[in-house]
Amino acid sequence: MNFELNQEQQAFAETARQFAMQQMVPFAAEWDRNHTFPLETLRQAGELGFCGLYTPEQDGGLGLSRLDASIIFEQLAMGCTTTTAMLTIHNMATWMIARWGQSSVKQRWVEELVSGEKLASYCLTEPGAGSDAASLKTTARAHPGGYILNGSKVFISGAGSTDVLVVMARTGGEGPGGISAFAVPADATGILYGKPEDKMGWNAQPTRMITFDNVELDSSWLLGEEGEGFKMAMQGLDGGRINIATCSVGTAQQALNTARQYMQERQQFGKPLAAFQALQFKLADMATELVAARQLVRLAASKLDNGDADKTAYCAMAKRFATDVGFTVCNEALQLHGGYGYIREYPLERHVRDVRVHQILEGTNEIMRVIIGRRLIADEREIL
Amino acid sequence: MNFELNQEQQAFAETARQFAMQQMVPFAAEWDRNHTFPLETLRQAGELGFCGLYTPEQDGGLGLSRLDASIIFEQLAMGCTTTTAMLTIHNMATWMIARWGQSSVKQRWVEELVSGEKLASYCLTEPGAGSDAASLKTTARAHPGGYILNGSKVFISGAGSTDVLVVMARTGGEGPGGISAFAVPADATGILYGKPEDKMGWNAQPTRMITFDNVELDSSWLLGEEGEGFKMAMQGLDGGRINIATCSVGTAQQALNTARQYMQERQQFGKPLAAFQALQFKLADMATELVAARQLVRLAASKLDNGDADKTAYCAMAKRFATDVGFTVCNEALQLHGGYGYIREYPLERHVRDVRVHQILEGTNEIMRVIIGRRLIADEREIL
Amino acid sequence: MNFELNQEQQAFAETARQFAMQQMVPFAAEWDRNHTFPLETLRQAGELGFCGLYTPEQDGGLGLSRLDASIIFEQLAMGCTTTTAMLTIHNMATWMIARWGQSSVKQRWVEELVSGEKLASYCLTEPGAGSDAASLKTTARAHPGGYILNGSKVFISGAGSTDVLVVMARTGGEGPGGISAFAVPADATGILYGKPEDKMGWNAQPTRMITFDNVELDSSWLLGEEGEGFKMAMQGLDGGRINIATCSVGTAQQALNTARQYMQERQQFGKPLAAFQALQFKLADMATELVAARQLVRLAASKLDNGDADKTAYCAMAKRFATDVGFTVCNEALQLHGGYGYIREYPLERHVRDVRVHQILEGTNEIMRVIIGRRLIADEREIL
Amino acid sequence: MNFELNQEQQAFAETARQFAMQQMVPFAAEWDRNHTFPLETLRQAGELGFCGLYTPEQDGGLGLSRLDASIIFEQLAMGCTTTTAMLTIHNMATWMIARWGQSSVKQRWVEELVSGEKLASYCLTEPGAGSDAASLKTTARAHPGGYILNGSKVFISGAGSTDVLVVMARTGGEGPGGISAFAVPADATGILYGKPEDKMGWNAQPTRMITFDNVELDSSWLLGEEGEGFKMAMQGLDGGRINIATCSVGTAQQALNTARQYMQERQQFGKPLAAFQALQFKLADMATELVAARQLVRLAASKLDNGDADKTAYCAMAKRFATDVGFTVCNEALQLHGGYGYIREYPLERHVRDVRVHQILEGTNEIMRVIIGRRLIADEREIL
Repeated sequence: MNFELNQEQQAFAETARQFAMQQMVPFAAEWDRNHTFPLETLRQAGELGFCGLYTPEQDGGLGLSRLDASIIFEQLAMGCTTTTAMLTIHNMATWMIARWGQSSVKQRWVEELVSGEKLASYCLTEPGAGSDAASLKTTARAHPGGYILNGSKVFISGAGSTDVLVVMARTGGEGPGGISAFAVPADATGILYGKPEDKMGWNAQPTRMITFDNVELDSSWLLGEEGEGFKMAMQGLDGGRINIATCSVGTAQQALNTARQYMQERQQFGKPLAAFQALQFKLADMATELVAARQLVRLAASKLDNGDADKTAYCAMAKRFATDVGFTVCNEALQLHGGYGYIREYPLERHVRDVRVHQILEGTNEIMRVIIGRRLIADEREIL
Repeated sequence: MNFELNQEQQAFAETARQFAMQQMVPFAAEWDRNHTFPLETLRQAGELGFCGLYTPEQDGGLGLSRLDASIIFEQLAMGCTTTTAMLTIHNMATWMIARWGQSSVKQRWVEELVSGEKLASYCLTEPGAGSDAASLKTTARAHPGGYILNGSKVFISGAGSTDVLVVMARTGGEGPGGISAFAVPADATGILYGKPEDKMGWNAQPTRMITFDNVELDSSWLLGEEGEGFKMAMQGLDGGRINIATCSVGTAQQALNTARQYMQERQQFGKPLAAFQALQFKLADMATELVAARQLVRLAASKLDNGDADKTAYCAMAKRFATDVGFTVCNEALQLHGGYGYIREYPLERHVRDVRVHQILEGTNEIMRVIIGRRLIADEREIL
Repeated sequence: MNFELNQEQQAFAETARQFAMQQMVPFAAEWDRNHTFPLETLRQAGELGFCGLYTPEQDGGLGLSRLDASIIFEQLAMGCTTTTAMLTIHNMATWMIARWGQSSVKQRWVEELVSGEKLASYCLTEPGAGSDAASLKTTARAHPGGYILNGSKVFISGAGSTDVLVVMARTGGEGPGGISAFAVPADATGILYGKPEDKMGWNAQPTRMITFDNVELDSSWLLGEEGEGFKMAMQGLDGGRINIATCSVGTAQQALNTARQYMQERQQFGKPLAAFQALQFKLADMATELVAARQLVRLAASKLDNGDADKTAYCAMAKRFATDVGFTVCNEALQLHGGYGYIREYPLERHVRDVRVHQILEGTNEIMRVIIGRRLIADEREIL
Repeated sequence: MNFELNQEQQAFAETARQFAMQQMVPFAAEWDRNHTFPLETLRQAGELGFCGLYTPEQDGGLGLSRLDASIIFEQLAMGCTTTTAMLTIHNMATWMIARWGQSSVKQRWVEELVSGEKLASYCLTEPGAGSDAASLKTTARAHPGGYILNGSKVFISGAGSTDVLVVMARTGGEGPGGISAFAVPADATGILYGKPEDKMGWNAQPTRMITFDNVELDSSWLLGEEGEGFKMAMQGLDGGRINIATCSVGTAQQALNTARQYMQERQQFGKPLAAFQALQFKLADMATELVAARQLVRLAASKLDNGDADKTAYCAMAKRFATDVGFTVCNEALQLHGGYGYIREYPLERHVRDVRVHQILEGTNEIMRVIIGRRLIADEREIL
């Protein structure tokens, strides 16, 4: 057992931290206020390799493990939660295309996705389906030379500003086995984009409904085999949960650091907040929970990398715990700032709004409990 | 002992509920989005008597108790948290002017304040002072015929859109005994209004810094006697805490009702959310905590009405508990809505943003614990 | 609305407090250690009227409301949780016999039960049934002149030391409608008492399994009509939940008082514990939650007294909330005592062990959530 | 980074698990009931090397790291919390004697301590001092050929049944610098043992006060140098906190396993408890928190092994978090058992009573927060 970062991990983390502090922290409030999608920053992240972290090296990516990627995304999330979350989605979609794409599709997209010149969105959730992915209704009907795509997807991050969509659609019968995945150009005829959703947070990325109205899909756009879509989606979700949990950890660390510093500067009743024992205890609990959350995320990422039989349960645990802790830490940091925590001049209320959705996304934390509970009931092996 | 509303209270509650549902619910999201201060709605509330709830009848108010007022404000808060909170502040300032104002000042303001034609703001908090009210630095220096007012106030609700300011300023030496209260016309020469603060919530009321630059105060504007300001402020705070706690209870009830209904309509995995036991348990806990919070608020209001020796401790308890429960209930209601809870099309994320500040305002919940703790340590009588 | 005790309630509370402090506090630790059932103390309580608090006056009881009884039981529980809990069970069984007993049975038992000369146990729970009361398997088969009783009951408080048993048994078919209630002499032929259960707490009352082996029941022992047993049991449970919740509130108040005093006496790092802000905050939270719990219990008792349509939901809320708060407060009080909290020389660990079972008895707190959740889902009226 | 046990660790864990299941689980309830100190079992543990886990190999120990020891102790704690806790104390005292003892003392004791033929107690805490170790009052006054020891120690685990005492006493002036450590034979003239404390749990080991009445200490019994005692104690505490946290993790895992199995067997309302969603969610949360706690303990143990600059803060975090989680998991497992959780026929209530003291021992969890808070305030480096 070894809990320390190796030299390479330290170097990546350091690079990511610098990028976060210099290229994101100074602008994140403005992106939030103006609902700016920072395309240029995403491209700069691509230059550093952050758009293809676990895309294999032979496809131009860095070929890192999920654990390595988590270490990097955590640092980035300290700079801007929303932009980093978008980056994680792009990484996942890029990895899917590189992993399961046919050669023509890989040639068309992967290099530019890895470099950040092009961006990808991931289209799974449908109106009315929410956490019940297996019931999806979007259809890709067979058609000479390919498929005809019809249906709607909601809450699609980056939609309208990205270049390629990884779309889950039903090519077969009901249930998970009838679902296939496709890499669809975002500007294909028949794709309609809804208005950007007005959200509580995550304002630095557009979220839109997408409607597919008889979109013609070339058969080469199919990822993997017909019927493998749900399996891919589930595999993607394990990693997606690590990623979103990581974004919570990074944001919470940033909020904790901000609160720690504020407590030393802010005077009340003639002494700094840091001198009040009850507030020290609160800070201590925030840090303790955060360190525990980080370790759980790294454990789960490692289990995912190792193909552990219980990887899905570990990823669910990490997502549940870290996103809950992340919200609590940000919210307590807001509280420690008093009235200043509530105004947008300070970053705390933004952190709270941004991490709030992590408890919902990629399967709500209630769904995580369903997954963990099932594993515990079904199998008496201990989870260590 | 009797825990039921009497007929008059039921009638008031019913009127308030109707006003909330008809005049506020349909517009509250828009007020939030556009940062609208709904002056017309406040005036309509005045027509129903809601601008002078506990202003004595001889001064044109309804002369109700704090408990009665809490029952009414709770219903109004179901319609719009922020507007109701503004209304409570206006009620408090109106009551202060009616209670301690000199006759000329009462004549000038009270009737129109009670009717809602004019509005009042309350100016206590200063930059850098936060919860430490006794250290305030704004001065009202003696001057022929009155005082010269200098200093700054922050986080002033309604500032820039109200007509009269109740201002706490130092007329004497350091500490609480040197503080006096004044009713200052909002358009007096030398009053400068800052930009509206960009806040997490409470967007239906402007919050601004106010700077007093050599504002001449007529001696008749003094409320009560010189040096009584801190005492008034503290008395005001007991009621203010009941009010803000009430706004949390009303908002949480609205969030709970919304979630309850959503759970019956929303289908997942082939059945309504309401059929899932873990979600039923969550709903049960939300309701239980909320009922407890409401009772604690009413107990404290009753203690305040009776002039109980421990009224300040009770008000602090009610404020701490009800604003924490209020936030939790709204936040859980958001979670029960999944992704829909996070978008502005639904009211949940607004409820969360609006009630969040209640844990900070009128003395942070940490200050409430200081007050309660001191009482417990100082005096062995039980708090029942 | 009125939250204050009236004069009569104050007088009862004062008497109960004195009895608790003088007749129970000095002995409670010893009763716990030696597993003593303090029959003499129960009789003394009877002399003060505490064995027939809500038995009607015409039957020799005090004819008090459930709210009045709660006020009294709370004070008694400050003296000994377990003895008071036994007293509440005795009160319930006594009330059932007085309320539904045939005249011969009432004549035989009620006077001596009210005076505390005889004691009653309540036999509902069966092995394997737990919270699922309607599935009970004990049978009372019709038989010339009466019934033959066969079956087993578990976790019966007082069993082996009491004089009469109120027994729920099946006279008809499956489900709730087949259940009837009987008042059975504790020494009837065929009643077998198991060994006293070795429990975590509640050691001042014996808990045994009871087996009925062809016990002949006289038809006059039937309470109410055949088939009314489940309804009686459910009615009894509403009151039983108020009572057990009350025992938690009283014990927690005693624990809080003990901790408060200890904090003022115990020195650490050169100052009393009371001077540490984080411990003050903990004490403040304990008191706040406790006051809220007490109010919720009283609200529910009042709803029960008024026959409110939602009385069962209110009683479930009160039981869930007050027994959880009671445990937490006692457990925090233990923690505030450090190592001394863990040894039996101090009362804290006993308080924790005693109140722990309140979260399980009379329907577990999970069953309370089922009840509350169902009510919320079934009916959109608000619970106020 | 690597989160998996290596082969050696797996082998040790397997051996420890077997020992726990075969030599402790069948007897632990009886040891608790009869307050038995299982000397024979401790000796058997010694035969497996478990009495000198981190005593250096040259002194006859296994020379393992703290992390290795934690992995082993966790498995043992599944068998009996109290016996394992005693074993950890013995390991710590043995390590101190081996590490700092003079050669004659090492020769006299170490071999038999490592083999478990002799046992050691650790004497730090004094009456009235609690967590404030630096203020200890026991004196070791210089005297020809050695010292004269006077004073009292409280809450000494194993006292009266062990062979050697590691005693902290003041040889110099006030404060930490005046404290020295000694290895004192338990039967030395002038050592008086109090009655065994009657405790909530930890009944399988005697806890007594020890009074030193002019006990003559040979100068060779001094451990390390004069004045180094506090430093040793603090170093010992870091490891002691890992150990006690580990005992909580192991016990909680055993409680979780027991609850999981019970949920599959116990039927309520016609189906197993495992089929109720709300109970599945509870089990899921228990497991998640427990896995997070285990990881935090292992992280801290690893930091301690590496001599990390922040090792004390990590150990405090692990102790705080794991002992809180351990209590909560055991307490929830009790609740899942309903009435059966409350009786001694089942192990749950014993688990709760045993782990409760871990939140108090080795510095209360409040002291842990002081340590963590100070580190966060003093130094802006992040804790990762």
